[in-house]
Amino acid sequence: MDVKSISMNCTRTEFIGTAVLDTIGLVIAGIDDALLEQMNVGKAYHTIGVFSSRTGAAGQLTAVDEAVKATNTEVLSIELPRDTKGWGGHGNYIVLGGNSVSDVRQAVSIALELTNKYAGELYISEAGHLEFAFSASAGQVLNKAFHAPAGQAFGFLCGSPAAIGLVMADNAMKAAGVNIIEYMTPNKGTSHSNEVILAVSGNASAVKEAVLAARQVGLELLISMGSYPEIPGIPYL
Amino acid sequence: MDVKSISMNCTRTEFIGTAVLDTIGLVIAGIDDALLEQMNVGKAYHTIGVFSSRTGAAGQLTAVDEAVKATNTEVLSIELPRDTKGWGGHGNYIVLGGNSVSDVRQAVSIALELTNKYAGELYISEAGHLEFAFSASAGQVLNKAFHAPAGQAFGFLCGSPAAIGLVMADNAMKAAGVNIIEYMTPNKGTSHSNEVILAVSGNASAVKEAVLAARQVGLELLISMGSYPEIPGIPYL
Amino acid sequence: MDVKSISMNCTRTEFIGTAVLDTIGLVIAGIDDALLEQMNVGKAYHTIGVFSSRTGAAGQLTAVDEAVKATNTEVLSIELPRDTKGWGGHGNYIVLGGNSVSDVRQAVSIALELTNKYAGELYISEAGHLEFAFSASAGQVLNKAFHAPAGQAFGFLCGSPAAIGLVMADNAMKAAGVNIIEYMTPNKGTSHSNEVILAVSGNASAVKEAVLAARQVGLELLISMGSYPEIPGIPYL
Repeated sequence: MDVKSISMNCTRTEFIGTAVLDTIGLVIAGIDDALLEQMNVGKAYHTIGVFSSRTGAAGQLTAVDEAVKATNTEVLSIELPRDTKGWGGHGNYIVLGGNSVSDVRQAVSIALELTNKYAGELYISEAGHLEFAFSASAGQVLNKAFHAPAGQAFGFLCGSPAAIGLVMADNAMKAAGVNIIEYMTPNKGTSHSNEVILAVSGNASAVKEAVLAARQVGLELLISMGSYPEIPGIPYL
Repeated sequence: MDVKSISMNCTRTEFIGTAVLDTIGLVIAGIDDALLEQMNVGKAYHTIGVFSSRTGAAGQLTAVDEAVKATNTEVLSIELPRDTKGWGGHGNYIVLGGNSVSDVRQAVSIALELTNKYAGELYISEAGHLEFAFSASAGQVLNKAFHAPAGQAFGFLCGSPAAIGLVMADNAMKAAGVNIIEYMTPNKGTSHSNEVILAVSGNASAVKEAVLAARQVGLELLISMGSYPEIPGIPYL
Repeated sequence: MDVKSISMNCTRTEFIGTAVLDTIGLVIAGIDDALLEQMNVGKAYHTIGVFSSRTGAAGQLTAVDEAVKATNTEVLSIELPRDTKGWGGHGNYIVLGGNSVSDVRQAVSIALELTNKYAGELYISEAGHLEFAFSASAGQVLNKAFHAPAGQAFGFLCGSPAAIGLVMADNAMKAAGVNIIEYMTPNKGTSHSNEVILAVSGNASAVKEAVLAARQVGLELLISMGSYPEIPGIPYL
């Protein structure tokens, strides 16, 4: 097996592209029937988009949310493995369906491109990590993942080690009038990650204010642990 | 976002301190009501202490156990994420409650200080890790975490890869007359960690003898895998 | 505690040996009764073999499958912790039983030796990993782990990030007439690993063809993510 004989410029028809944080986007045309049955995502679609990353969840979900909104596709399943390449959080594994390869390919392409933007609010230090996301108008992906009311603003914050996440959540709630839509901890709603996660909804300016308040205290606490975070993307908030 | 503008000397009122193994201790005064509701820890306390680490569980739990005993606080929840910064075990996320900020601050401060002691019995090699803990008299935290009978001696041993933990457990049981209070494996009681864990109770000298027997065989087996462990703290047993 | 005083040449009676991927094999003669009770593996055997690794599952399970077939031993439990030393997959923790130390020792020794072979189909890059396994005739271990019909050929494929695994599974199913016996994802059947796993059965040449088709597309996609995989063993397919 001479793996070096394989080119990094993939020419498979399934390959769409890659993005930051070990993210890959793929499409399957005419998926095998027995496999589709096992996947438990219904049988409406035989063209399947798959999108997954080793690191990050909310940023990519926000990207996929916009991609699905912008195309003729539907989100079929969202799973968040315990990953982050040795760090305390999640990766993601998202399955989309569409009626044509071009629809699905367009959705996955948009999601890959937006991942490079929405993964910007990830901060990883030697001690832990923080992740933030914001959408002015949640679509079906954020609804499926976090029960975000469709059409309302959505905010997400997460801190690891988990104690930081709780203080971030408290600051977010005190900063602006927003509603809690999900609260997650190592034993509740996560894949045993070392995080406290809060997802909120409300009007756009309040949600953004809550997320920014969480980011400020989260960074101060993470940095108090003795190292500055790397920022793999470009912060957008 | 210029993160370097943030000082490592945290001045937030929530910040109490840090300890080895990426441990942080925090306090929230007058926690947000909607958040408290989500936390599912009752509503008796509005001053909340939070303590968590990327790596280690038993050492920190033993530290928090003594801290709660020594102060006017109560343990509200204990969760053990799948973490260890890429290794095969757990981190921890512990929530305390108290009637005043000074009570909670005192409890978390003691827990941070004792973590530097009780995390001493952690051994991490290239291949796996071992962790041990001992308390002459278990309090409410060790009771909540491992069903340790209050007031009795408590011993804890853990080995990864898991096979080492089982041989350690067998040696512990054969070394002294102690009672098994918890037995955990990747699929049972853990967050899918690669460990066998045994918690025992009994009289203090028997429990200590059991833990020391486990430590001896555990170290011999871990070292047989080809590398010597790092010891991030100072062994105290 | 001077750990450097302990030799890497382990002389414990429990120690049998080690293998690639942080694998260790051990035997317990006359296991403690209270511990055996906790293990929930029945009481037929008091001589217990234990085998576990930080990284890898299918390769080691295939090795243990042949070892059990070749000896007078029985598999008692199989657990797959979330591990891989910071990567997106599993380790393993397998318990065997036998009536004599020599039977169990022989089984574990064979399993360790075969692990160095069957772990050959593991490919770990900076971005993710792939694992493959093939047995011409599944025995009780592969039956217990994946419901492989005994005596039939067994094939296994796994890809991380999970999206790669799904495309591999689709290619495998389209390449040859095989039956799906297990389909696993981060939320289904795994310990929240970042993998899609497919196990198939059928006639030997079809199963091998399916696995090889999956390997080809899996390597192309993994390499498209920007780095070539390390191969810790020697590929055997």
